[in-house]
Amino acid sequence: MPQLAYVNGRILPLADASLHIEDRGTQFGDAVYEVCAVMNGRILDWQPHLVRLRRNLAELGIVLDIADGPLTLQARRLIAANGHSECIIYMQVSRGTAKRDHAFPEAAPANLVMTVRRFDFAQRLRQLETGIGVITQPDNRWGRVDIKTTGLLPNVLAKQAAREAGAFEAWMVSDDTVREGSSTNAWIVKDGRIITHPTGTAILPGIARDSLIRLARDAQWQVEERPFTLAEAMAADEAFLTSTTAPILPVVRIDGQIVGAEKAGGKTGPVVRRLAELVWNEVARQTGWRA
Amino acid sequence: MPQLAYVNGRILPLADASLHIEDRGTQFGDAVYEVCAVMNGRILDWQPHLVRLRRNLAELGIVLDIADGPLTLQARRLIAANGHSECIIYMQVSRGTAKRDHAFPEAAPANLVMTVRRFDFAQRLRQLETGIGVITQPDNRWGRVDIKTTGLLPNVLAKQAAREAGAFEAWMVSDDTVREGSSTNAWIVKDGRIITHPTGTAILPGIARDSLIRLARDAQWQVEERPFTLAEAMAADEAFLTSTTAPILPVVRIDGQIVGAEKAGGKTGPVVRRLAELVWNEVARQTGWRA
Repeated sequence: MPQLAYVNGRILPLADASLHIEDRGTQFGDAVYEVCAVMNGRILDWQPHLVRLRRNLAELGIVLDIADGPLTLQARRLIAANGHSECIIYMQVSRGTAKRDHAFPEAAPANLVMTVRRFDFAQRLRQLETGIGVITQPDNRWGRVDIKTTGLLPNVLAKQAAREAGAFEAWMVSDDTVREGSSTNAWIVKDGRIITHPTGTAILPGIARDSLIRLARDAQWQVEERPFTLAEAMAADEAFLTSTTAPILPVVRIDGQIVGAEKAGGKTGPVVRRLAELVWNEVARQTGWRA
Repeated sequence: MPQLAYVNGRILPLADASLHIEDRGTQFGDAVYEVCAVMNGRILDWQPHLVRLRRNLAELGIVLDIADGPLTLQARRLIAANGHSECIIYMQVSRGTAKRDHAFPEAAPANLVMTVRRFDFAQRLRQLETGIGVITQPDNRWGRVDIKTTGLLPNVLAKQAAREAGAFEAWMVSDDTVREGSSTNAWIVKDGRIITHPTGTAILPGIARDSLIRLARDAQWQVEERPFTLAEAMAADEAFLTSTTAPILPVVRIDGQIVGAEKAGGKTGPVVRRLAELVWNEVARQTGWRA
């Protein structure tokens, strides 16, 4: 069965799925997107992703003329048509196609695109055992990274640097503060407290981040949303990251140095283990998925 | 005659010109571009644009498998096919089409796209008489705006703010320093000296900027490449902007205030007039174009 994609109301073979070269997403990065995890055929945290998408569209004044109900149906239809029960769905909305001019076009309907790609979530459970390494990179992104736009080149360059260093992710550091990863949120654990950068304009408000905060607090963990320094991260008991495609992964090395050398010592620590239980139980609760 | 575009070696109707939805320019802003002025059927400053394009590709590690000679031929072919003697040519090179993943794909040939759009350069001579207004906007762009990437959303938002304020352009201000416009370089004139922000990572090294510096110096003007503050701009004798599509335009209002109130006083000043002569003579020299 060929892979299928969705472009402006039509489901068609992925190979044939295109946008006009004057799509504003393509020419200006004038587009927002969401990525959702699909497990057991069900979309995880669909509602919060929709809310974030709408908020980002509103921030940029992009009008998407399809209500949540039909959008949900189209997303589900595409997933079903692809026949994957375990995958990620990517949705992108641009300000439309128009003769190139920086200012907003007068009457260009938004372009809505969706792709579905098979994804092996069980690998994330295996990585839970080994942990992953991150490197650090200066955060030179624009001032509104809270809006999930396709202007991801700094993230691309940071991720590529990580890849070349044999690391899983790059943590973006600004003013000695760890903001977040290039496509994940960053966390540390110290003396039983769970610490992550506060929302605002300097990080993306991750859905997995939000979910973990709620789950951890419900389980009586103390969660602090505050900036933390790279030195704090190096001296933390444990560290980890979260994202849609990596619901929780232990960070055991930062720039080649072992995190929590005197505690977890390069191995997955006890707090991350317990948080991972919460995270994957929530996945099972919402989708019925178990590895 | 339908408008024509170029996509990866083919010239085809603009209406049919598309890129795959997994083009990395579209999904990541992982692309660079150039815009050149074409007057009298000839491309202005083609060589410097080519040099800048190659430099930007090299900065990002994007491999474009077409040498300058064939690229020049294709650009000329597209211009001729469109039959416009006065137009702009837009060239975009992305890192290629690949399954979505932040890090660089293994083997994805770059996507090269070109469009040609009719452009009325004579309007720029008319605007030379009236001058234009700019507003100021905080410069919240990423740290490498010297690379001409398609990640232009901050520029789009600034230009839209200008449009809504009835202004031609938005000047991006950071640390009280005027960096450049959203798609133009920014200049002031004080006591006969011509001042513009130095190159580096905080501005785009404009081809028109570079050309004007050379022309002005050849004509014995003193040009200072140094940062200037918004207050300096407000108190300047004259102000102006340059770009490919606006080779030189007098800036007579900044945020609604008249520039050089005691000198040019809201009108095109004498220095800008003389520089405009140099600029348009150079256009005529290169292309034979005269209004």
